[in-house]
Amino acid sequence: MSRFFEAHRALLDQAVAASRSRGYWSAYPEVASGKIYGETAKADAEAAFKAMLGKPFDLGQPEKSRVGREVSPYGMPLGVTYPAADVDTLLAASAKAGDGWADASIEDRVGVCLEILGRINKQSFLIASAVMHTTGQGFMMAFQAGGPHAQDRGLEAVAYAYDEMKRVPASVHWSKPQGKGDPLAVDKSWRIVPRGVSLVIGCATFPTWNGYPAIFASLATGNTVIVKPHPGAILPLAVTVKIARDVLKEAGFDPNVIMLAADEADAPIAKELVTDPRVAIVDFTGSPVFGKWVRENAATDLVFTEEAGINPIVIDSTSDFRGLCNNIAFSLSLYSGQMCTAPQNIFVPAGGIETNDGKKSFDEVAAGIATAVDKLLGDPERAAAILGAVQSEATVKRVESARKLGQIVRDSGPSAMAGFDSARTATPLILAVDAKDETAWGEERFGPITFVVKTASTADSIALAAGSARRKGAITASLYSTSDEIVDQAANAFAKAGVALSVNLTGGIYVNQSAAFSDYHVTGANPAGNACLTDAAFVANRFRVATVRRQRAA
Amino acid sequence: MSRFFEAHRALLDQAVAASRSRGYWSAYPEVASGKIYGETAKADAEAAFKAMLGKPFDLGQPEKSRVGREVSPYGMPLGVTYPAADVDTLLAASAKAGDGWADASIEDRVGVCLEILGRINKQSFLIASAVMHTTGQGFMMAFQAGGPHAQDRGLEAVAYAYDEMKRVPASVHWSKPQGKGDPLAVDKSWRIVPRGVSLVIGCATFPTWNGYPAIFASLATGNTVIVKPHPGAILPLAVTVKIARDVLKEAGFDPNVIMLAADEADAPIAKELVTDPRVAIVDFTGSPVFGKWVRENAATDLVFTEEAGINPIVIDSTSDFRGLCNNIAFSLSLYSGQMCTAPQNIFVPAGGIETNDGKKSFDEVAAGIATAVDKLLGDPERAAAILGAVQSEATVKRVESARKLGQIVRDSGPSAMAGFDSARTATPLILAVDAKDETAWGEERFGPITFVVKTASTADSIALAAGSARRKGAITASLYSTSDEIVDQAANAFAKAGVALSVNLTGGIYVNQSAAFSDYHVTGANPAGNACLTDAAFVANRFRVATVRRQRAA
Repeated sequence: MSRFFEAHRALLDQAVAASRSRGYWSAYPEVASGKIYGETAKADAEAAFKAMLGKPFDLGQPEKSRVGREVSPYGMPLGVTYPAADVDTLLAASAKAGDGWADASIEDRVGVCLEILGRINKQSFLIASAVMHTTGQGFMMAFQAGGPHAQDRGLEAVAYAYDEMKRVPASVHWSKPQGKGDPLAVDKSWRIVPRGVSLVIGCATFPTWNGYPAIFASLATGNTVIVKPHPGAILPLAVTVKIARDVLKEAGFDPNVIMLAADEADAPIAKELVTDPRVAIVDFTGSPVFGKWVRENAATDLVFTEEAGINPIVIDSTSDFRGLCNNIAFSLSLYSGQMCTAPQNIFVPAGGIETNDGKKSFDEVAAGIATAVDKLLGDPERAAAILGAVQSEATVKRVESARKLGQIVRDSGPSAMAGFDSARTATPLILAVDAKDETAWGEERFGPITFVVKTASTADSIALAAGSARRKGAITASLYSTSDEIVDQAANAFAKAGVALSVNLTGGIYVNQSAAFSDYHVTGANPAGNACLTDAAFVANRFRVATVRRQRAA
Repeated sequence: MSRFFEAHRALLDQAVAASRSRGYWSAYPEVASGKIYGETAKADAEAAFKAMLGKPFDLGQPEKSRVGREVSPYGMPLGVTYPAADVDTLLAASAKAGDGWADASIEDRVGVCLEILGRINKQSFLIASAVMHTTGQGFMMAFQAGGPHAQDRGLEAVAYAYDEMKRVPASVHWSKPQGKGDPLAVDKSWRIVPRGVSLVIGCATFPTWNGYPAIFASLATGNTVIVKPHPGAILPLAVTVKIARDVLKEAGFDPNVIMLAADEADAPIAKELVTDPRVAIVDFTGSPVFGKWVRENAATDLVFTEEAGINPIVIDSTSDFRGLCNNIAFSLSLYSGQMCTAPQNIFVPAGGIETNDGKKSFDEVAAGIATAVDKLLGDPERAAAILGAVQSEATVKRVESARKLGQIVRDSGPSAMAGFDSARTATPLILAVDAKDETAWGEERFGPITFVVKTASTADSIALAAGSARRKGAITASLYSTSDEIVDQAANAFAKAGVALSVNLTGGIYVNQSAAFSDYHVTGANPAGNACLTDAAFVANRFRVATVRRQRAA
């Protein structure tokens, strides 16, 4: 078993170092290239994906019935079914598997985690198809965010967990001087004690990226994991769980150390799992409404959530107006605004802003962004790749009903999707509103819905943006300003509101992007989530330390 | 300000190293010697203590009325009054003080914490008197546990907090290669964001030892602290808060960064504070009943508790029967069993045990321990020093009513206390019961109450002891066995139950003792508490990290 640890040890050491220095580093190549992943990898994965459709997915875990009614946002039902069992059966099997897993050495467990990640990486093309046809992401995004970037996030969690566990020494000889007498001497040893069963509730938009940190943090620290995927995005996590179970079995562990708990929208099982006292850890990614319920009703105190918020952009001034418009246009368009990091509100002073192209009025700023969106999406093939499809019908309806909330600067419409005639699509809707229309912009409106909010001044913009972040949560904030003083003011305001701030993004970096090993995703300091991916607090409480003290024989 | 950091930096580095290696280390001398603390330190402190009695205690904090009705367990009322204000006033002043404290550098805050600890150390004799005459501890224990050992625990928390904060780099230049193009370049910086107001609820028996870790962990990480002492043990924490406020003022901070929130038993304010959403962190030490209420009703999710449990001793066999009896006798007698680490249940097989003095029957083991208690307490002066006084009248009543719960092996009685004729005292009550009398031994009975429990076998003893730890909590467990196999079985069982195990203590180390920098106090893995003093999980979530990313100019 420790062969896995030895095989991946150099990678682990690099990951630990990267998570501390937080410069650029990545373990798994994001380029979907045959040179890296094998010349037949893409074709093999396409064939494997097609072979899964319409069939039972085999996991070899306790099974009493079959569930699964996923429909691709690109139009076709997947027809895959997954094993289902009652909560008692799942929890009993998970607990039973936990004994051997808890007893394993840190290195054995971490080695298994690293091997799982390595094998998942090799299946990145397959996972890309599974992510694309459940979340609606365009293929390239599904490959990168659902594949290597998610794997990096998983590795980051393993690195944090390993580092944290290794801070506890295995043993020490404790010797306390007693003046002229013999010292008091005690041999002490410590072991890592896991919490128990860890429940990971996945989301529909980034099932792997948001799920892997929790899955791997819990596994590495000795907990067993029950993965409860969103009923609309089961397949990517089913593939993940299958790979993990294979590695566990190969390493001599009970594969029920990780299990899938799939369900359907009309017979959900998450609440029953969350409220069961046998569940020791809950990780949740999803809506603030259910997130609040989970926080308030979980049987365990140990709940980690990533919910959502209202991400603001504050525009004060810029030395690159075109770059500003293009950068924001991409952020609004990428995956049709369905990222938890996508901006919703763009605050612009009523008096307009200073730019390198001269003064721009409020309307000109709004129009500049709208035009940039039009241009970005002008080429249908590029538009399809950037926008992807819309995961949920509710999001399309939300866009429709949002139209009346302000003055339409750019209307949303469908986007042609070559090869997928019945894909569910929606381009960005951009509305102009006044700061006082807080019923419009002051609520989270998930999807491609953006408000350009007219404010009294940049100071007003910062106050409104930071205030809504404190009240409703925010994961990202963005500022454009040529004034260092304004940048400092915004940095202070958003730090207090617990939001990560990006400044003057006009090139190839976007506010929605969060890089493993460098960007802390979610601060845990506002209602957008109570945890961060990934920091020490995300892992340190997933295990406890048990001591044995033995008096040394005289 | 950073002069404080520089002044104490070497000590901090040693503390960080000690908390990782966990060998013996202590910063503050436990010997109450004039050579260390100054030849007049003891006399000065006695005079200072007497001068405080019957007077208002000045803290210079917002004040609307006076409270305080402490009565020494040694007999006399203290007559000290403390400032009181409504919860709104306290929270507003605390929040206001928080701005400057949050903006201070890590080094400035940590420097202030270290200076506070250093000045507290110099007042160890004064704090000893305050601890003695509120908790009832004997003077030497009050000096050591209430003084240097508590200060060590505070320093340990500062070391963990400093180490954890410094794992977050201040800034990095992030540069992501782009094939043949220019790399994507972003300057990133991070800052520590505190959670806000931290409430520390103290206990009546170890106000400083149990309070300092939370106070200093929260202060170091930038939170403001409101100390809500037990109404019976205000003075030690009032002295602490006064010293802390002096240092804060001297360093240019608002002294309301730390405030005392004293109350009286018939007008308690803890619940109002705990349920106020302006309180971001709650640290609680006290009874499981109120601890459960705090966990379930706190407005914040961030609650750290040390409650209590039923600490077991399992006796299987020994190569030093006399050492066993003497060691246990001391553990039962020290501070009249009022330590959260004191044993309650001693599990002995019905068939007796093998010892170096031959086979000992169940009754002989019980009698051996009882006799050792009698001998230990035979000298009145030594008895008074070891037993101290009983903090609460309820404990004395609990001892009285416990008499009927089993067969009395050794009866409890008063203990003469020279110079304190009306001291509240009680020597250990030892009862023999059968394992099936779980209504007797299966509940926490705080104070000098011990059950010798007759079991079918050592395996039965371990199962009963570990089972009660899982259900009711336990902080310590102790085992006597000459068999390595039994030791391994017990180590596994107690690790799973989340209890620290001590093995074969027959000399000068006692199961009740928990040494800073080495022993993890409470595992957080059973109902005796959800947190550990001190580990990474105790500090990592007391702050969050805010990011600023700036696109680097091309």
